[in-house]
Amino acid sequence: MTATIDPFRAMAIGQLAHALAAQGRSIIHMEYGQPSTSAPAAALAKAHHVLDSEAQGYWESAPLKERIALHYAQTQGVTIAPEQVILTCGASPALVLALNSAFAPGARIATARPGYVAYRNTVKALHMQLVEVPCGAEQGYQISAAALAALEPAPDGVIIASPANPTGTIIPPAELKAIAQVCQQRGIRIISDEIYHGLSYTGPCVSLLAYAPDALVVNSFSKYFSMPGWRLGWLVAPHDLVEAAYARMSNLFLTPPVLAQHAGLAAFDCTQELEGHITTYAANRQAMLDALPALGLAKIAPPDGAFYIWADIGHLTDDSMAFCTRLLQDTGVACAPGVDFDSETGHRFMRFSFAVSTPLVEEAIARMIPWFAQRAAEKGINPPL
Amino acid sequence: MTATIDPFRAMAIGQLAHALAAQGRSIIHMEYGQPSTSAPAAALAKAHHVLDSEAQGYWESAPLKERIALHYAQTQGVTIAPEQVILTCGASPALVLALNSAFAPGARIATARPGYVAYRNTVKALHMQLVEVPCGAEQGYQISAAALAALEPAPDGVIIASPANPTGTIIPPAELKAIAQVCQQRGIRIISDEIYHGLSYTGPCVSLLAYAPDALVVNSFSKYFSMPGWRLGWLVAPHDLVEAAYARMSNLFLTPPVLAQHAGLAAFDCTQELEGHITTYAANRQAMLDALPALGLAKIAPPDGAFYIWADIGHLTDDSMAFCTRLLQDTGVACAPGVDFDSETGHRFMRFSFAVSTPLVEEAIARMIPWFAQRAAEKGINPPL
Repeated sequence: MTATIDPFRAMAIGQLAHALAAQGRSIIHMEYGQPSTSAPAAALAKAHHVLDSEAQGYWESAPLKERIALHYAQTQGVTIAPEQVILTCGASPALVLALNSAFAPGARIATARPGYVAYRNTVKALHMQLVEVPCGAEQGYQISAAALAALEPAPDGVIIASPANPTGTIIPPAELKAIAQVCQQRGIRIISDEIYHGLSYTGPCVSLLAYAPDALVVNSFSKYFSMPGWRLGWLVAPHDLVEAAYARMSNLFLTPPVLAQHAGLAAFDCTQELEGHITTYAANRQAMLDALPALGLAKIAPPDGAFYIWADIGHLTDDSMAFCTRLLQDTGVACAPGVDFDSETGHRFMRFSFAVSTPLVEEAIARMIPWFAQRAAEKGINPPL
Repeated sequence: MTATIDPFRAMAIGQLAHALAAQGRSIIHMEYGQPSTSAPAAALAKAHHVLDSEAQGYWESAPLKERIALHYAQTQGVTIAPEQVILTCGASPALVLALNSAFAPGARIATARPGYVAYRNTVKALHMQLVEVPCGAEQGYQISAAALAALEPAPDGVIIASPANPTGTIIPPAELKAIAQVCQQRGIRIISDEIYHGLSYTGPCVSLLAYAPDALVVNSFSKYFSMPGWRLGWLVAPHDLVEAAYARMSNLFLTPPVLAQHAGLAAFDCTQELEGHITTYAANRQAMLDALPALGLAKIAPPDGAFYIWADIGHLTDDSMAFCTRLLQDTGVACAPGVDFDSETGHRFMRFSFAVSTPLVEEAIARMIPWFAQRAAEKGINPPL
């Protein structure tokens, strides 16, 4: 039997949003977890140059692997060898590589619920056993060392994410260290998705590599570097899995895009421009937090990082897909339904992505406040304020 | 147990070639199956335009899916719906999608030996059972309908490729039709790798879709369209597998590169430039065929298509990796060792890729003739004339 997996429903919302835009409607895209900004100027300039000067064959950039290794040394104080860096066509195939290199079908892989849709579905598609650990607001929707210590039997692996999608919550460094210790004691291999590193508002992002050198770490140019459609990511493989991971990369994926590798290397020198995006996201985050009372949304995860608000809308609906579809149709504001991220209780949650411009976030809030008030009125809930 | 798979050894030859080039050596790259030409001019112009005008988020091009569907109607007389086209980051992940969508671990997947290295390794990495069918020169190194009819038990699936890598051989239309019939009778699902379609010298390339509408077809912009490093390919999924394939694409890979999708659409209008490449390949193929007697290579596969010569070098070596390494070190001509394509007898084969310029093919031949004569002399073989 082939595995049955779910579609990524936010993409259906995105398609509807594009269809409405094509009809002339004003659409604000808060459904995808992607910057609305382009790649940094120097990366674009490098891409123009390569287009004019290179044939673009199958290629892996050795300088980019070295630059990524240097990045860990500079930002995390962690030493890795360039050959531990496997360049991929984005973080999604890096997760496929990580799971396939470290585990076999039947392996038990733990992950927090709510969590990114592809964790659940990729584990299932590779015929591994998903061990979902329900994580509530009181623990920041994150899996804890204590929860990993209590799982019986011990899982073979665990996927953690900090900052997380859909919640934006960050695992504190002390807890990360405790997770690493429990996993070492119990023989649990960790995959750490660090794709939102660099996007934090309450403290630094610490790589799990600081505590667990045998972990597999996934990252990408899609978020901090503002290059989602370029399809470039990486896997840091521990020494014992480098050969297995590289053999899989060359057979299952071959090489990553040439232009993206050149542009990605240039992007490492664009700190000022990229930090400007963080300033925007911080303003957007504050605007959203300020607007939550008027939206009547009291139960949210603390958005420490990334560019998401994960909100409980259980007082308004028990069908988040229908709710988000109607919100889009009525107001032009596209958001992601919670069912993508939590197959059990996601029908009463939704995710706002605030990685658009600040004026668009303000416009979205202005459109949503009366719409949410109407939904509350329909339910006989007193209007907020 | 995770699967043990082989590396793609031609990539080690490629790395050595780049290292020698960095030392100032004159290197001729005939090790990779890739055009040395760039994307067509109109595709490059489109990419420049998109770089200047779009942020490049996660995106799938509906017009490109429609254009690919039109391509099958125009060139093959085959009707497919645009939603059957799943855009991927190259043919390699399209094969992963195809196998994972149609089969479960343990499924028995037949394929010809010799064959492309990733067929063997991807089947193994996904924990399916590889059923290698040894195919000799007398059958064009291709799996036949008769061979598929004789396999007991019937495999669950078969991967075919025409034109093939590493041999360039084409399955005649009548045989393709017979393969489709046998597979329908025996319940064998076919994956047809048509990545070399458009590159043929002895007759047209017929899509298996003409005979087997329930087949999965893999293709890409890497060969005919001369865009390997852009990482764009596609899977045509049969109606019963569209939903499964699309769910896997959105979870395991997300989206293909934005620039490549725009440029790929433009490349469909560059027939004159692309057909010019075929003229070059045809001249290169003839130059290689003319040179074979002087190289002492009598046993080759008929190179009907693609841009390869698959040659038996068993009279000179039983270690094709060492042979190709020495050839590269001595002459600067990089070629692929046969072990990538045939784990049983590939130690006495090698693959020449003639997708470089005609002057470079001529230069490679001039360097190789005395070198092959020396190897023959060492073996006590009379020098070819």
